Amino acid sequence: MTTTLQSLALDRWTTPETGLVDIPSAVDGRVVARASSAGLDFAAMVRHARDLGGPALRKMSFHRRADMLKALGAYLGERKEMLYALAADTGANRRDNAIDIDGGLVTLAAYASRGRRELPDARFVTEGEAESLSKRGSFVGQHILSPLHGVAIHINAFNFPCWGLLEKLAPALLAGVPVIAKPATATAYVTEALVKLIHQSGLLPAGALQLVCGGLGDLFDHLGGQDVIAFTGSIETSEKLRAHPSIALHSIRFIAERDSLNAAILGSDITPADPEFDLFIREVVREMTAKAGQKCTAIRRVLAPRAQEAAVIEALKAKFAEVRLGDPRHDDKAMGPLVSRDQRDAVRVAIAALSTEAEIVFGNPDSCSGEGIDTEAGAYMSPILLRARDPMQALEVHDTEAFGPVATVLAYDDVDQAIELVRRGEGSLVASLFTNDDGVAEQIALGIAPWHGRLLIVDRDCAAESTGHGAPLPALVHGGPGRAGGGEELGGMRSVAHYMQRTAIQASPRRLAALTGTWSRGAPAPAASVHPFTRNYDELVVGESIETASRPITLADIEHFAHFTGDTFYAHMDEAAAKANPFFPGRVAHGYLILAFAAGLFVDPAPGPLLANYGLDNLRFLKPVSPDDAIRVKLTVKQKSPARRPEYGEVRWDVEVVNQNDEPVARYDLLTMSARAK
Amino acid sequence: MTTTLQSLALDRWTTPETGLVDIPSAVDGRVVARASSAGLDFAAMVRHARDLGGPALRKMSFHRRADMLKALGAYLGERKEMLYALAADTGANRRDNAIDIDGGLVTLAAYASRGRRELPDARFVTEGEAESLSKRGSFVGQHILSPLHGVAIHINAFNFPCWGLLEKLAPALLAGVPVIAKPATATAYVTEALVKLIHQSGLLPAGALQLVCGGLGDLFDHLGGQDVIAFTGSIETSEKLRAHPSIALHSIRFIAERDSLNAAILGSDITPADPEFDLFIREVVREMTAKAGQKCTAIRRVLAPRAQEAAVIEALKAKFAEVRLGDPRHDDKAMGPLVSRDQRDAVRVAIAALSTEAEIVFGNPDSCSGEGIDTEAGAYMSPILLRARDPMQALEVHDTEAFGPVATVLAYDDVDQAIELVRRGEGSLVASLFTNDDGVAEQIALGIAPWHGRLLIVDRDCAAESTGHGAPLPALVHGGPGRAGGGEELGGMRSVAHYMQRTAIQASPRRLAALTGTWSRGAPAPAASVHPFTRNYDELVVGESIETASRPITLADIEHFAHFTGDTFYAHMDEAAAKANPFFPGRVAHGYLILAFAAGLFVDPAPGPLLANYGLDNLRFLKPVSPDDAIRVKLTVKQKSPARRPEYGEVRWDVEVVNQNDEPVARYDLLTMSARAK
Repeated sequence: MTTTLQSLALDRWTTPETGLVDIPSAVDGRVVARASSAGLDFAAMVRHARDLGGPALRKMSFHRRADMLKALGAYLGERKEMLYALAADTGANRRDNAIDIDGGLVTLAAYASRGRRELPDARFVTEGEAESLSKRGSFVGQHILSPLHGVAIHINAFNFPCWGLLEKLAPALLAGVPVIAKPATATAYVTEALVKLIHQSGLLPAGALQLVCGGLGDLFDHLGGQDVIAFTGSIETSEKLRAHPSIALHSIRFIAERDSLNAAILGSDITPADPEFDLFIREVVREMTAKAGQKCTAIRRVLAPRAQEAAVIEALKAKFAEVRLGDPRHDDKAMGPLVSRDQRDAVRVAIAALSTEAEIVFGNPDSCSGEGIDTEAGAYMSPILLRARDPMQALEVHDTEAFGPVATVLAYDDVDQAIELVRRGEGSLVASLFTNDDGVAEQIALGIAPWHGRLLIVDRDCAAESTGHGAPLPALVHGGPGRAGGGEELGGMRSVAHYMQRTAIQASPRRLAALTGTWSRGAPAPAASVHPFTRNYDELVVGESIETASRPITLADIEHFAHFTGDTFYAHMDEAAAKANPFFPGRVAHGYLILAFAAGLFVDPAPGPLLANYGLDNLRFLKPVSPDDAIRVKLTVKQKSPARRPEYGEVRWDVEVVNQNDEPVARYDLLTMSARAK
Repeated sequence: MTTTLQSLALDRWTTPETGLVDIPSAVDGRVVARASSAGLDFAAMVRHARDLGGPALRKMSFHRRADMLKALGAYLGERKEMLYALAADTGANRRDNAIDIDGGLVTLAAYASRGRRELPDARFVTEGEAESLSKRGSFVGQHILSPLHGVAIHINAFNFPCWGLLEKLAPALLAGVPVIAKPATATAYVTEALVKLIHQSGLLPAGALQLVCGGLGDLFDHLGGQDVIAFTGSIETSEKLRAHPSIALHSIRFIAERDSLNAAILGSDITPADPEFDLFIREVVREMTAKAGQKCTAIRRVLAPRAQEAAVIEALKAKFAEVRLGDPRHDDKAMGPLVSRDQRDAVRVAIAALSTEAEIVFGNPDSCSGEGIDTEAGAYMSPILLRARDPMQALEVHDTEAFGPVATVLAYDDVDQAIELVRRGEGSLVASLFTNDDGVAEQIALGIAPWHGRLLIVDRDCAAESTGHGAPLPALVHGGPGRAGGGEELGGMRSVAHYMQRTAIQASPRRLAALTGTWSRGAPAPAASVHPFTRNYDELVVGESIETASRPITLADIEHFAHFTGDTFYAHMDEAAAKANPFFPGRVAHGYLILAFAAGLFVDPAPGPLLANYGLDNLRFLKPVSPDDAIRVKLTVKQKSPARRPEYGEVRWDVEVVNQNDEPVARYDLLTMSARAK
């Protein structure tokens, strides 16, 4: 029996009855599922996300939401085999599933872990340092990022039914924004199964995730300025969607990842004798065959120095001759079919366009073979390699994306020409460069960087650990300018910011400290009634401070310290030489002596809740300390953040060391680990 | 004789002959200038910017471009009086000119100074830290920002003919991107004069700035994915421009600042007895009368607790009664006219719409008076205050921007209602809140932050130094979501990034260090042939390093250091207590003792090019050092940056302190000032 895909609307799974579209299997063309979004109340879905999902997510802190993603990743990890099985009908083999399913789980885990590490246990993020806005310091500014109160609409491509959902979902949920996801219909049955697992887990609050299998209906009519659309797919669809009047009227954020004619470049320094040559060949083959070339990051343009063009083509042909086509249900290592016969037809049309200026040097778009497969019923296609006859005159190769196992070799005469050819792609997600020459790397990388979201430079040093041309990573931005859509996804916490509004807050330091939980200079620093080192993390109050007694630093101290530590730098030891230094009035105390005496002044020796000083940030020595100056220290609780382990908290202290004239001589942030209340 | 405004195209001033539009004076309606862009070859202008301006700007480093902006600011500052004189016909009085002309110069200077301080002396920016992408460390990632190779199209509003040009120009030029600016025709004669000064200065390279007086013609047809459009104006124009097919096709960045129904909120804690009450009244009056209310940041919605509504209205009426209308050519302190009679007509239409749900409590839109002014020929209008009859039912007040000295009072019952009313504006550039209560501040600020680019919280502490509700500052973002356009300008270096492409570079640490000029762990660190402290800034090579001898740390050292510094923390002094601490195996050395001994190991005592250690960043203690452990130090040149003064350079050193088992016990960046080659 053929499955009718359900949508998850208002936290209920609903089965459509009309408007059903057949979804054929990639491997044999039989109908594996039917989908339609007819009958869905999109206005109600948007309200549900805004009224239930958003508030529930925003009630949690970033850390709680990160924990939620971590739990979700663990839950899905234990149940991923059923997704592997389903995905065979999309044409995915074992390696393809590793990219899609495991890659999605890795992304989820990465966001969980970075969210814990890089975001605060709070409901908004303070971004950057406080900005001084006034002479006397009574008026300051601070940027914050807080979650939008809308819904994120995620429109995904067919090629990654799992990764596509998860890589968009993780940053949105971490930001605190609920999601309505709409997978491409061709592989929606895998996404539906994934979302059923997520829903069964019960780990997300109601309204946090809804799913549309089928068309978008009138969804966009109900969107406003607090909503975000993130789209992956073709230029044509992107243009059509972006033209919806709601988007311009309400300035709805529209993040697009789309067609991209990614290049791989063999450096002009490389010959077949260099290891980079083989690395290049291997990467081109891998990118053309993974997902049968149906990746937005796949290599479409293969640039080689003219002298190496023939060698490159020969080497690629030899590798392609070894590529086996197979049915992923039975042979999970062979290259599977394209997602559908329609898709194969589209690729054939694109190859025909490319053929007007390039000759096919490997493969036949209209015919292929493989053991035990029906190449008529299944959407199979062998790797197709083309060679541009006159690269500098070619147009289609920079404009036509054949979304299958297809690439074109372009010979270049010199590095400037290689750069010019790559730029003609008018913006790509990624390019890769194979070189072992710093000059070539610099010239090409900087020459094409403005046209790319990601650049991979492969050499013999990194090849073994390189994650490859085609792999977007959670830590790095994924997206490109121009043709590639101008969007950005991933890139660590950058993508979380896409779902937040940046707001500059201007206020008195007192008000700002109360609002952000971070003390800054100028805010009240009331004297603590007891030494704050005797108070546990939970008892400490941001802003409370102590001022220590004063201690002179004598010439004897400086000499003693110099001989004890071995730091006999002339500025501490030789009056005449020190005076000749442009920064010192004569002999001065060591910076580390100031730090050490400062600690001696503020430390509380007995065991207590303060467990360790684990570091120090932003130390600046502001004024030299001369013999017989006296220092004292102002120590203020600047910020508190829960540590990984629940029994500890991290406390950031503002330390200001001043001299006998109350002039600051050093400032830094002291970092301590403190015990929490039991 | 009436001036015909010239455009600056291909670095030549060209005078149009056809299609001329009359520009009337605000004060008396006479024609002060005529404008037309007929005959301009926009395709050639775009090519000129891309082929000449872009390459010339990109050849300079960020520091050189910052220096260029600084020189430009100084040049303009000496010649600003002529702009003041011209601006009188736009209706601007002395205070208005201070905002527009001086405000523009302040912004230019701020970008010059921040560019020097916050950007490198290089052609691209490394953003964030290197990302570890592999287990063994042979493959790393680094985001960079490099200038787009296109042109920035700046479309400005009539109200700030100088500031509007300069606040967009400064970040674009600093980024390295040439500009084609198109001022609003109504006040283009002031902008034309400003650009003539800039051009006369000869400080910008050819192609860096072109000016279009008149319409945009077919300019957008010639744009592509490397170009940026930054627009300030109405929603209607924004929607029309954004709909141009080039924008969706090439994903052209479109930054919009537009209509905004900014709110000022009197906190529920405030009564007329509080200083914040008077501060609120003063700010509303100031914002309604500056530029005769023709500011995108002006206050349009005045929210007051219901109990204070009458008092607020009375206080505002009393202040408005004192507002004098006058001709800025003769009286530079009175409130001037609107920019044109057409603009006044538009404001009257907007007031009529507001009047369907609000009563006018001060002023008459159709009539006003002032000494020595012709209120028929000049576009004068007195302040107009309205009061919403039923704020929760009102619609127009959240949707109709009367771009003149017009605002509406809305009474609210509780803080939640105030938040709801503000949100109904659907996105604003700024809101201000007058309160002296942390709870009110937190609830309202966080409640409305996602709808705003900037929030001003005024209390008695900051009022004297507050820059006010209406003032965008170079340091803080200017822009808002939704109705306000979704764009961002200013915000320090954030706006420079709008003209750059973010690219993630993946490579081996060696290749990355060569490319970025920043050493990171894993890159080669060849041993220096002489102690690097004996080499001047220019001789130092990024990556060169020394490894010191080893030094044991004895229990006697620890005890000696404790008694000498006074830091007798139990972890150093008491074996049993230290063992009970979860982080220490027993007594351990002081962190500052490790730092001091490390310095003793790597310091070179004799006078030399290394002049001072001015600070330290990112110090982390990684492993405790127990008595009789021995430490040694690896010191590597991490990064070099020229200092403010040309005779010095700042060197950042990577310091790793390891123990006898080669385990890192501490890591930090050491910051030194070194002399440059003579």
